[in-house]
Amino acid sequence: MAKDMTLLWGSGSPPCWRIQITLEEKKLQGYNQKLLSFMKGEHKSKQVMDMNPRGQLPAFKHKDYVLNESYAACLYLENQFGGQGDKLVPECPAEQAMMYQRMFEGLALNQKMADVIYYEWKVPEGERHDSAVKRNREALTAEIKLWEGYLSKGPGPFLAGKTFSLADVAVYPSIAYLYRFQLSEDRYPKLAAYYNSLKERPSIKTSWPPTWLETPDETGKLKDI
Amino acid sequence: MAKDMTLLWGSGSPPCWRIQITLEEKKLQGYNQKLLSFMKGEHKSKQVMDMNPRGQLPAFKHKDYVLNESYAACLYLENQFGGQGDKLVPECPAEQAMMYQRMFEGLALNQKMADVIYYEWKVPEGERHDSAVKRNREALTAEIKLWEGYLSKGPGPFLAGKTFSLADVAVYPSIAYLYRFQLSEDRYPKLAAYYNSLKERPSIKTSWPPTWLETPDETGKLKDI
Repeated sequence: MAKDMTLLWGSGSPPCWRIQITLEEKKLQGYNQKLLSFMKGEHKSKQVMDMNPRGQLPAFKHKDYVLNESYAACLYLENQFGGQGDKLVPECPAEQAMMYQRMFEGLALNQKMADVIYYEWKVPEGERHDSAVKRNREALTAEIKLWEGYLSKGPGPFLAGKTFSLADVAVYPSIAYLYRFQLSEDRYPKLAAYYNSLKERPSIKTSWPPTWLETPDETGKLKDI
Repeated sequence: MAKDMTLLWGSGSPPCWRIQITLEEKKLQGYNQKLLSFMKGEHKSKQVMDMNPRGQLPAFKHKDYVLNESYAACLYLENQFGGQGDKLVPECPAEQAMMYQRMFEGLALNQKMADVIYYEWKVPEGERHDSAVKRNREALTAEIKLWEGYLSKGPGPFLAGKTFSLADVAVYPSIAYLYRFQLSEDRYPKLAAYYNSLKERPSIKTSWPPTWLETPDETGKLKDI
């Protein structure tokens, strides 16, 4: 039981979900946790700020060690609890290289997705331009095509080959997010197959964002991407 | 001799420099390398695109394994060549946690720095707003103050404590970049002391951006931050 860990998280946030998946994979259940609401601004509450001065979720601690950056937390947990659960960093150098490469390319996917989905939230009204919206959507489309290509050409079925790894931990939440906002399964069939095949993996199913189960996404923001 | 490695790089680019520092630290000299010019658009050349379809530098390979994302390359090199040169991931869990945490916070520093320095390059003329420039500068100032605070409160002299680690590899190039654009040493004395103390470290001195040695920065873009 991981009683010496605490996670403050928000539903659907890819960074939060990455840590939750890693904790499940490493058999670190039973940690202290609290679901907070971005809508209510709870990520700026004193409880969060005390752990994460950036006022962001996740806020995560093991003992006194603060690990708020999701990639940092995942790498740390794999390193410290390597012998528990599934190994998330492949030993084979070729697979390991691809694992790290895809894991970090995931940050570009996540950024480009946020640029499209949260444009109106991030850019004040007087600074918005249709040309920027168009450019962001084109950048996201090009990015998604890259991933569709990786999954078409790769050894599969996972992002770094034959085993589930930190590349999947890091990138799957972003891919699920794309489909939450109604990305076309027909236009990106390899990505859709990957998305659907991992839905039932215990670490992912158990940690599936609770708000996604309650309400379907009606915005369809990505359906024409 | 690291004859089975190839690095295509640009002078001053923090992502390129991270890999160069890591290669020096891991005693992996003698690799194939080519300095390319961003100004001449050589990062979009066929030679780069063949290794890095994103058309970005660095483009890096070990044998046939492509590792273009700088964080991916650094983690891979440390993992594969752990027994050579200095160990870059501390074993002590507290130091290791801080190492990963600071390493990944470095991405926020780098992003906020780029948002200020490259605003005119990134945002087309018709989409530029003084309010955005002001907001970006405020965000960078707040970010730099965080790092000044970390260095004031931390165990030091390095970012994760008493030993040079991947946190320094990842973040030092961004901090050097701030001073290249004339950040005030007086206003951020801890950061300046850290910057100056590492200038002579062999891995850093050897890989210092050659264009920085040739021409001083005259833009002073960050001198009022």
